[in-house]
Amino acid sequence: MVRKPANYSKKAILTLLYEHRNEFLSGQKISELIGCSRTAVWKHIQSLLEEGFLIESVQKKGYRLMQSPDGLNEPAVAAGLKTKRLGRTIRFYESIESTQKEALRLADEGAEDGTVVLTNEQTNGRGRLGHTWQSQRGTNIAMSMILRPSLPIEKTPQLTLLTAVAATDVIEKVTGLTCGIKWPNDILYNGKKLVGILTELQAEATYVKAVVIGIGINVNGDLSDLPESVRQVAGSLELITGKRYALAPFIQEFFECFEALYTTYLHEGFQSIRPLWEQRALNLGNVIKVRKPGGHILEGVARGINNEGVLLLQKSDGTLAQVYSADIEWDK
Amino acid sequence: MVRKPANYSKKAILTLLYEHRNEFLSGQKISELIGCSRTAVWKHIQSLLEEGFLIESVQKKGYRLMQSPDGLNEPAVAAGLKTKRLGRTIRFYESIESTQKEALRLADEGAEDGTVVLTNEQTNGRGRLGHTWQSQRGTNIAMSMILRPSLPIEKTPQLTLLTAVAATDVIEKVTGLTCGIKWPNDILYNGKKLVGILTELQAEATYVKAVVIGIGINVNGDLSDLPESVRQVAGSLELITGKRYALAPFIQEFFECFEALYTTYLHEGFQSIRPLWEQRALNLGNVIKVRKPGGHILEGVARGINNEGVLLLQKSDGTLAQVYSADIEWDK
Repeated sequence: MVRKPANYSKKAILTLLYEHRNEFLSGQKISELIGCSRTAVWKHIQSLLEEGFLIESVQKKGYRLMQSPDGLNEPAVAAGLKTKRLGRTIRFYESIESTQKEALRLADEGAEDGTVVLTNEQTNGRGRLGHTWQSQRGTNIAMSMILRPSLPIEKTPQLTLLTAVAATDVIEKVTGLTCGIKWPNDILYNGKKLVGILTELQAEATYVKAVVIGIGINVNGDLSDLPESVRQVAGSLELITGKRYALAPFIQEFFECFEALYTTYLHEGFQSIRPLWEQRALNLGNVIKVRKPGGHILEGVARGINNEGVLLLQKSDGTLAQVYSADIEWDK
Repeated sequence: MVRKPANYSKKAILTLLYEHRNEFLSGQKISELIGCSRTAVWKHIQSLLEEGFLIESVQKKGYRLMQSPDGLNEPAVAAGLKTKRLGRTIRFYESIESTQKEALRLADEGAEDGTVVLTNEQTNGRGRLGHTWQSQRGTNIAMSMILRPSLPIEKTPQLTLLTAVAATDVIEKVTGLTCGIKWPNDILYNGKKLVGILTELQAEATYVKAVVIGIGINVNGDLSDLPESVRQVAGSLELITGKRYALAPFIQEFFECFEALYTTYLHEGFQSIRPLWEQRALNLGNVIKVRKPGGHILEGVARGINNEGVLLLQKSDGTLAQVYSADIEWDK
């Protein structure tokens, strides 16, 4: 007999309940499907109730999941997920320092393509260029995806742009809001940042070992836990629409949308993503300022991106500058 | 009073003894320089004797280091090192799974430019493209350097070529042997591999966070502990010259040579390294086979490298192919 991990049955029961959200499942059926006793099923249901799951229990009909506690759990994301690879392996943590740091560690240890690190709380989330990413527990999406594409290293930043397209698409699908992208990958609505994306690379000489893409999406909450400096520039979907959104289906939509774009990209290259990105881009045709990592500032008109994903900035003398890595600014 | 770590005084005494290898240091002088009691000095000396250091002790003259135990220790590498940054911070481990893995972890945590991870024994050393690197305890050099150059990611593989130049130079300086480089970075003597180099990259989109360069050099030993398959392709400096070489001065020479080349490279670009690499390259002008990561094989005449560090292969139809990442083979 293969010994299963201690929590295997409970997780399996919860996944079953998620997969059959609109119907009753008898204790007998669950025990057959999972391969544990009916007493064990009963005990696991009690334990789930204690964790805050609302499970209806009706004589002769069985159990039905009515409501989940706030925040995420792994079965909620796994149940019914329609992707081929992305999110098929989930490493879930109730709280973690940084999903990105953990995903980089797992990638270095050989975690497979499509593995996702997911959490309800980051205690020290990472942002771009050494910034931190702050968010409220259980109200937002914080995750890091491990990808192992066969790409030259200089092309991997294109995945950042692709991720921004996927994020705006999912937000539109779930909430109806049409957001814009600030190069390369901030997602804004009315000037407030809703999504942060961080792409990190592990490579051996010219060979890409892993790309780890971290995504933070402010879904629910009023950001009142966050410092004033963050609240001035950030928003949440709930603050805009007044509605709360279930996080697990949101993530599933994201995985499916991202995987479709990613598959197209791997087959057809960045030229298939470029028009999608430019359609969603903010301030094309306007004057922007580009602050390079060294502090040097360049001013010009944003003219779009080229087929490599590089930002094209038309300077006052008419020439085009190519911008690879920078923060950009504009007047509101 | 600032509390010093438990082993601080012992390490400081050993560093002093290394710095004054050819003279006697009195217990009084040591206790003043280190800031501990003469009794403490005596106790630390006893402890060093137990570890295998041979320290001469003469009445009214003091202590003199005569001989170190086999293998490396941190003070031996630190004492008298003339570099500006490289090796000024050393993380030394008697035994470790992989210096490369540890250096990548430290780099991700913010270790400063020039930090070096050093060990006497790797239990699971890494080689290129997922290979392992096997070596004997205490007889060879196994280390990983953390560098934070301001470079576009696609240029970082050039550091692999630079490292190969540094390794051949140091071997020639220490042993008088003139080795050749097999593209991109194996160091061979009479067809036997003496050095392995592994360059790994941590980047955020287009921004290089750290380059970690692992170097294994077979210095002493007859490789008899290693599997037959490794012994067929590998050699050691001792096997060739019949002499044993002290590891710490060897590493110091390497740090100094590498830092000089690296400084030139950062100022003048790869064109300053290219001729040095080509002078040491094996089989330029000869037919070689190139096995790409996917398994695809290309045959042609090796024509050198370009100013980007890319191998140029002239195919039978006369055209030049650019080779970025591959294993190469030739007939002996």
